[in-house]
Order: sequence, then structure tokens, then C-alpha cells
Amino acid sequence: MTGFVAEHAAEVDAAAGRIRPYVRRTPTLTTDLDARLRLKAECFQVTGSFKPRGAFNAVLSLMQRGRPEGVVAVSSGNHAQAVALAARTVGIHALILIPEDANPAKVAATRALGAEVIQKGITFANREQRLREVMSERELALVHPFDDWDVIHGQGSAVIELLADAPDLEVVATPVGGGGLLSGTAIAAARHNPSIKVIGVEPAQADDAYRSWKEGSIQTLSAAPTTLADGVRTTAIGKRNFEVMFTNRLVSEIVTVTEEEIASAVRTAWTRLRLALEPTGVLPLAAFIAGKLPAGKTGLVLSGGNANLETVAKLLATQ
Amino acid sequence: MTGFVAEHAAEVDAAAGRIRPYVRRTPTLTTDLDARLRLKAECFQVTGSFKPRGAFNAVLSLMQRGRPEGVVAVSSGNHAQAVALAARTVGIHALILIPEDANPAKVAATRALGAEVIQKGITFANREQRLREVMSERELALVHPFDDWDVIHGQGSAVIELLADAPDLEVVATPVGGGGLLSGTAIAAARHNPSIKVIGVEPAQADDAYRSWKEGSIQTLSAAPTTLADGVRTTAIGKRNFEVMFTNRLVSEIVTVTEEEIASAVRTAWTRLRLALEPTGVLPLAAFIAGKLPAGKTGLVLSGGNANLETVAKLLATQ
Repeated sequence: MTGFVAEHAAEVDAAAGRIRPYVRRTPTLTTDLDARLRLKAECFQVTGSFKPRGAFNAVLSLMQRGRPEGVVAVSSGNHAQAVALAARTVGIHALILIPEDANPAKVAATRALGAEVIQKGITFANREQRLREVMSERELALVHPFDDWDVIHGQGSAVIELLADAPDLEVVATPVGGGGLLSGTAIAAARHNPSIKVIGVEPAQADDAYRSWKEGSIQTLSAAPTTLADGVRTTAIGKRNFEVMFTNRLVSEIVTVTEEEIASAVRTAWTRLRLALEPTGVLPLAAFIAGKLPAGKTGLVLSGGNANLETVAKLLATQ
Repeated sequence: MTGFVAEHAAEVDAAAGRIRPYVRRTPTLTTDLDARLRLKAECFQVTGSFKPRGAFNAVLSLMQRGRPEGVVAVSSGNHAQAVALAARTVGIHALILIPEDANPAKVAATRALGAEVIQKGITFANREQRLREVMSERELALVHPFDDWDVIHGQGSAVIELLADAPDLEVVATPVGGGGLLSGTAIAAARHNPSIKVIGVEPAQADDAYRSWKEGSIQTLSAAPTTLADGVRTTAIGKRNFEVMFTNRLVSEIVTVTEEEIASAVRTAWTRLRLALEPTGVLPLAAFIAGKLPAGKTGLVLSGGNANLETVAKLLATQ
């Protein structure tokens, strides 16, 4: 084990302990689909996705370093609810910038968790700029959705649990958007057994991680991609994520899946696994079903279940 | 604890041990819906429902008593697949009588598990008569879906696991069709803590258990009921089930739910619990959401996930 892995794995352990009172230990499922599969069902996590693991670790770590007035995040989805819940739990303010065209249900869920939401004038394109403006005006600490060590270490806790339940896994696959979940996973897996193959799965329509892996440097998509997997629409992975995944070679491979493979995996999840997953949450399953993962006993991190109901009803009806 | 409870609880323990190599220990879930709830997610059981618990216990017990040539069962649904799997596992023949109008997907699933299926001329009305004919012609042992002590004891194993995970439950609710799951549950719960309220939930459209409870004797519906919950269309509970539930007063109450309450609970399960349950599997959840269960820390046995996709896609689209 390298010093890099040892140091960061210790931080993942610390994160797991820090967040334990606030998050669920989600189950590892075996199913009739394939006896080699172990499914880490993060759709059963609080707020319906793995995101509170990183958000709680970031907010609790900020509190240890000196209580901030509040936190700020930019998100239209699962990270927004996770930061709102973590802030409310420790009793500080949360400001969330959400693009104007976001799903109203997710905005309502974020507000219901006590967060202040700013939507007016926020677009996918200008949100980073607006964030800098807000942060210069108000004393708020940023909780980045992926390019943040506390967030990365928190996300790694899911795979510590998975490997405790299934210590002999040979392959572990997760979705990859900005790379928070994948880099936390890669650290935890490398410490457990350096020969485990850690795979990131993303839509072919949003293949920035794949291109970054191939090029050896961070590649940025020219525009926000269109994909069923709306949780991985980030245009580039983060610097810290690149460092873990590729500079330190803790990720073996990035695999891409087509929109049809994602749609088909949603149907398989809902009908054969009995898991009501969101399209982003099925990415590793899509890669497995398409035969794109290496052979061996395989753990899939199914990252969340906050599906757009209309989308899923259509997918199910067209089977 | 009465002698009746002690004797049958010992049989439930023996069943749990006997079937352990063949069934899954399904997870007990907590969710964001209500902090008092503990969900026993039997949709993750092998074949997608709790039924293999009873079927395996019956088939393994038959093998202990002297290897039969094969087993026979009448079912159009989850019991058929469970008996087929149990028979194949121990290497004996399974003959399943399935009514002609059954869901072709379930017939195919039963055949895929190696069972011989007879459908020609079988109707919901004549199937018991046809069963007697087949049994007189061939040396097959019957595995009744609910009115059989081995089946009842096997089904009780689910709630042993639930109470191991959540020992302080005050209320436990399960669906009730013929009463196999409910009577096994009632035995296991009474041994654990006689003050636990055990509740059976059935559709108001199929209220034979409710009427039997009120009348103090087995009441039979004049025809197979029409309900979304197609797993509980039996017209009467069994004699052994009545003995456990009402003669021995191990069930506190039978609660009925409307078709709209069932439909709404399916939507809640799929969208908020992230559990892709079949309508029968949500019956206890429907009663909980409708405020029809007693107060207290509550365990719901969510019995299965073999939904008719077309039905569920419609329910989701009309939310």
C-alpha cells in the first residue's frame, strides 16, 4: 500500500466514524439476477442517495475546525438535499444555488429540509460565477459536490461497508460524474485489497471521465450533456478526483454505456431487482448487463433512487 | 406463553434452521417515510417473495419423512415458483396446476425453474377438483400454499429475522390471503413478546379473513375477488390458519384497505421507499399510511415484488 492510500484510507475510516450517527448502513443485496453480484443499495440511504455521506463528513469537519455561519452548495439534485440535511442537523444555515430549470420536486425537497434556495437567474452555465459572488458577499463555507477531500472521504464509507459484507470482491463499479464517489471508493478498495479492479461507469453522452482517463489530463465537455443519468451531467471531474483516480492509478478503467443500455438497466432494476433506482443509480448495472465489466465477483454501488417518476413510468411502459 | 405457542414456535425455529442454506436473510430497512417503521423487504427473497420459506420447509420436511416421487401445488403466482425451486433444489419432480388465464410471465418463470405445468382446462373454480384427480393418479405429495403446518412454520422465519433486527417492535403487520404468512408471523411474535399486536391486512374487496375474525368461524367468499392485490385472492383462510389466528387469539385484528389505498401505497413504495413492490406486498403499508394500524413502533412485512409491470406503469403514470 502506498503512503497516499494509507493516509487517505485513514481519513475514510475517520469519516465513517464521524458520520455514523447520521447516515444509514445500507444493505448489501444478493439477487436472482446473477450469483456473482453484490449490490450496495444506496437508494435506501437518508434522502435517497449516497450524497449525505460526503456532505455530513464535510459539514461535521467544518464544525470541528471552527463553527462556520453556514454552508453553501451548488446543486440541482441529491447533493442539495444532503447538504441541507447535514446543515440542519448541526444547526447552521445552508444556502443552495439551484438552476432555474431544475426539477421542482427536488427544489421543494431541499426547502423542506430547511435550506435557503436561490434559483432566480441561476443557470447551469453561470452557477459557478454566481457562487463566487455569493461567497464574497456572505461568510459561508463551500461544500463542493466532489472536488473536496472531506466529501471524497465521506463517500468512501459506502464501500467500506460493502467490503465488510463481501470481503472477497474482485471488481467494484460505481457511477462517475465529478468523481467523488468513485475516488472515495478507489481509496477504500485499494486499502482493502490492491488487486480489486475499481471501475467508473458514465454515459457515453457524458464521457469526460473516459476522455480524461485516456488523455491523462482533465478533459472538459463543451456543454452540459443530455443523458437519462441526470446525476452525472458535470462537464469535468475535479482535480483531487483526478489525482486519486488516475495520477495514483487507483481506478482501473472508465466504462461508458449508451442511453439504451441505461434505459434497459432501469427496467431490470425495477422489475427483476425490485429496486426503484434513478437512471444515474443503475450505471454500474448497465455496464454489468452489457458485459462491459471484467469477470469476477462484482460489487455494484447503486448510488440513488430519486427518479423522475414521469421518465421512469415511460421507460417501464415501453418495455 | 401457552403450550400451543411454545410448541409451534419451536417448529418455526426448526424451520428457520432447515431452510437457511436455501433462502436469503432479507434486510430490515428504515426509511425517510416514518422513523417508527421497520420494513422486512421480502421482495429481495429468492424468486421475489417470502413463499420459498414455507415451500422449502415443506419440501425438506417431506424429504426427511421419506423421499416422495415429487410434489404438486396449485398456484398461479409466487407459491408456484417457490415450490418449483424447492423441488428442483432437492432433486424431485414438481407438478404445478396453473389456471389457464394466469399471467404468462409467471407460467414461464415456473417452467424455467424446471416444473411441469398443467394449464389446459384448469380454472380458478375447478382447480381443487383437478388437484384431487391428479393426486389420485400420481404419487405426488401436496404442498398447500397456506393450510399446512410446515408451510406456516417456514413463513414464520421472516419475522424471527425481523424481531432479531428490531426486538422492540410493538406492532407487526402482514398481508393476509390464506393466512400462511400471518399465522407463522403470529406464532413467532407471540413467543418473542406476547404483547406485540399482530395485524393482518387484506383488501376490502377480499375481506374473508376480516369476516372470519368477526364471525368467529371461517367465512368463504362466493367468488374469487377482483383486487389489485392478486396474491390474496383466496376465497377463505385455512383451518390451521384459523386455529392459530383466532382460536388461539394470536392475531389482534384484521384491517381492510380500499383499492385506492393500495394504489397509493404502491406509488409510495416505488417513489419514496425505492422498493418495487407488487400490490399484495404493499398491503401493510397501505394500512399504515391510511392510519389504520395501532400506534407504536411498527414492523411491516412487505411480502413480494413480482408486480405486473403494465399495472404498475399505469399506477405510476396516474399519480
